[in-house]
Amino acid sequence: MFHVVRSSAVPLADQLVEELSSLIESRRLAEGTRLPSIRLLARRAGVSAFTVTAAFEKLLARGLIESRRGSGHFVAVRRELKMPVEVELGPPVHADPGIHFAHSATDARDIRVPAGAGFLPASWYADAIPASALSKMACSAATQGRAPSQGDGALRELLAQRLHLEGVPAAAHNIVVTAGASQAFDLIARKLLAPGDTVLVDDPGYFVLPTQLKARGLQLVSVPRCPDGPDIGALEEAARLHRPRMFFTQTLVHNPTGVSASPANCHAVLSLAEKHGFLVVEDHVYTDFATSHRVSLAQIDELRRVLYVGSYSKILSPGMRVGFLAVAEALVAPLIEAKIVSVLTGSALIECVLREVLASGTYRKHVQRLRDKLASARSRAVERLREAGLCIEHVPSDGMFLWARLPSPLDAEELAAHARRTGILLAAGPMFSISGGSRDYLRFNSAYAADPLLVSFLNERRPLIAQG
Amino acid sequence: MFHVVRSSAVPLADQLVEELSSLIESRRLAEGTRLPSIRLLARRAGVSAFTVTAAFEKLLARGLIESRRGSGHFVAVRRELKMPVEVELGPPVHADPGIHFAHSATDARDIRVPAGAGFLPASWYADAIPASALSKMACSAATQGRAPSQGDGALRELLAQRLHLEGVPAAAHNIVVTAGASQAFDLIARKLLAPGDTVLVDDPGYFVLPTQLKARGLQLVSVPRCPDGPDIGALEEAARLHRPRMFFTQTLVHNPTGVSASPANCHAVLSLAEKHGFLVVEDHVYTDFATSHRVSLAQIDELRRVLYVGSYSKILSPGMRVGFLAVAEALVAPLIEAKIVSVLTGSALIECVLREVLASGTYRKHVQRLRDKLASARSRAVERLREAGLCIEHVPSDGMFLWARLPSPLDAEELAAHARRTGILLAAGPMFSISGGSRDYLRFNSAYAADPLLVSFLNERRPLIAQG
Repeated sequence: MFHVVRSSAVPLADQLVEELSSLIESRRLAEGTRLPSIRLLARRAGVSAFTVTAAFEKLLARGLIESRRGSGHFVAVRRELKMPVEVELGPPVHADPGIHFAHSATDARDIRVPAGAGFLPASWYADAIPASALSKMACSAATQGRAPSQGDGALRELLAQRLHLEGVPAAAHNIVVTAGASQAFDLIARKLLAPGDTVLVDDPGYFVLPTQLKARGLQLVSVPRCPDGPDIGALEEAARLHRPRMFFTQTLVHNPTGVSASPANCHAVLSLAEKHGFLVVEDHVYTDFATSHRVSLAQIDELRRVLYVGSYSKILSPGMRVGFLAVAEALVAPLIEAKIVSVLTGSALIECVLREVLASGTYRKHVQRLRDKLASARSRAVERLREAGLCIEHVPSDGMFLWARLPSPLDAEELAAHARRTGILLAAGPMFSISGGSRDYLRFNSAYAADPLLVSFLNERRPLIAQG
Repeated sequence: MFHVVRSSAVPLADQLVEELSSLIESRRLAEGTRLPSIRLLARRAGVSAFTVTAAFEKLLARGLIESRRGSGHFVAVRRELKMPVEVELGPPVHADPGIHFAHSATDARDIRVPAGAGFLPASWYADAIPASALSKMACSAATQGRAPSQGDGALRELLAQRLHLEGVPAAAHNIVVTAGASQAFDLIARKLLAPGDTVLVDDPGYFVLPTQLKARGLQLVSVPRCPDGPDIGALEEAARLHRPRMFFTQTLVHNPTGVSASPANCHAVLSLAEKHGFLVVEDHVYTDFATSHRVSLAQIDELRRVLYVGSYSKILSPGMRVGFLAVAEALVAPLIEAKIVSVLTGSALIECVLREVLASGTYRKHVQRLRDKLASARSRAVERLREAGLCIEHVPSDGMFLWARLPSPLDAEELAAHARRTGILLAAGPMFSISGGSRDYLRFNSAYAADPLLVSFLNERRPLIAQG
């Protein structure tokens, strides 16, 4: 009856689970049947009692058998429910192109080349978190209790130390831990802004942010992004005309252009913030990709007008949603309140793993490896894209993004729609622009942009490009 | 110079870190000083080169030393920043009593007896997640990539199987994984309701929920909660008068009363929902604490009018914020959209650990242990509280909560304020009531309610109670 294969890669317990569940599901073992005792079954199958117990636990977890105290295990009585038909649904189509992109980039199974994606290949993160850091957490009382709403205290100390090294003066009490930068933006929009307020955003800029801000009923005004930072003239005019409450910007390793603002530009932005009385939310999601030390708004301003948004989800592990806000002391309590109202608190397990990785020095090494990989991927990608006729005016020295212009008459959205049908995900310019600009731009991810499938897709369109 | 103690519990690398950082911080090793080579230092300290490398990694992570390629390690040049003074701040005082309670329950360090808390002692969760489940995750590619916004597919399959066992017909595509029940409520409030809509809530009921709903601009109407479920007469009147869009309720192991609604009551609630056209959000956060099979609204309704909110944060681990929504197919896409806009996606690491624990049968065993512990804690607690003069009309058969009435003239809020000064956290009735009722009730957590400090605090107030 029970036939286990010792040489199989499938664990013995799983082989038993397989065999028993097929007997139960085919009703060869009828509902209510008493199963042989663990000892008897172990003897018949030629395995240990421990193996049978493990198999029974899994069958119990799946509800296929029941345990009755003192009298053993029985095939469970099955409920017949009118189940909804299980269908293979693609991700739903969202009206907002940014939301649709964010959703399908991770959830769609038909993407072969995620050339426009905002994340690196999973394999690049393989060594980021050592197994020892995780198994250590299982024995740590800190991960068994609830994390403080503000975030683990020891983690906040470490983050403050790291900010200090960046030249940003923050103490642990200035920091609120969040589930990535997205949650940080959400908390700011919920609590520090009111519906109807006007805010400024980079154009082009990170594409989910405008949708987050609009969902809160905010009025958005775009500030063109130049290679050396926000367009100062346009920023001044927007500040004068619209009296904005905040400016959301990304100084270092800007998404999607990949370039960083100049120190002079930083100074001009802050001067305008002071003159016109707006706050600046500075997105530091890609800062650790920067190979050399760069000047940021938070450094110059020392957290008076600047709210610093950090994240480890892009660099340490996309599988851990963890970031933080570093802000002036007066803003801490309202942000904690917004966090309690939306998610109560964060996951202590995630916060403790990050703490461990930061303290041990693992993070520093991992970042160095990523930068090295990106540097060589970037030069390969630039070469291939240029060969295919695309123009990259400013090749960034850091990070994953390349902002490439298509020669006319090619339209980025049309090209992306074609590419999608062959399993290539492209990120079309207009998605990054609330003014609907950048129609002839694409954002590429260096890690995927030299993929042969993409390169041949682009080269097939060369005749079109050459005509244009 | 370097003096390590082999017999110490402190790892050798950490001893070196300690010694070197004190030399650097006291400036006995000046900025820019070149450190001895790893090999030389290892020889001098009598440790391995591996130990010195690990120590250097930690010093590099803390920014105390710098590494220059090819020329070794140097004491880092320190930036002098005007740092904010690091102060030991207690958690801020929030105007909303529920938010204040939620915040101080985890963040305040002066609580000795969390008798009113909504979570169990951390030690009760010590075996919930085996170390093997965590270290397995480190090697799993699934945790290195970003989780789909809807939640890990294999986890959703398992959740659907478990719902099936509860008698709720849901498929994986009906499920959206969330960061606990709090996020589920937030997503519903953001996307399926509009400011100005009226919703009904249990009174008494879970205390953060009303604040979450009010933050979205919703009008709240309370429905009194009786021992067998919501007061049907009051529910009918509220439905007629206020035309609510939704009713947020907790059928099984209700917070704060601990009791479950009867099947007849469930039928009456659903009939009213159909007649008056409102949806029901059913909070199943404590369902797995129920020792016997109970009837819920979701079972009877089969997810047509009912939105099922589940969570593993209360039972498996407060350190992992993970729960889910199981809803009719038409509601899935809007809820995913709300999730993208607020947090982009969840943590794959957390979702994969939950998947592992559910599939292996570990969860089932852990739940059984918790139930057993709670049963004995509950009878001890009931005894002590009754001895101290409190009245518990309905002793629940499941879960952690006891809803106890103080004899007049004692006021629950005054008593809680007194208790707080002696390090005892009490949960006063009015916090659970949007109508300001339950002034003479306290919610106790069975796990802490027999604590000698609490018992003597209550007994000291007995004379007052006897006078009343």
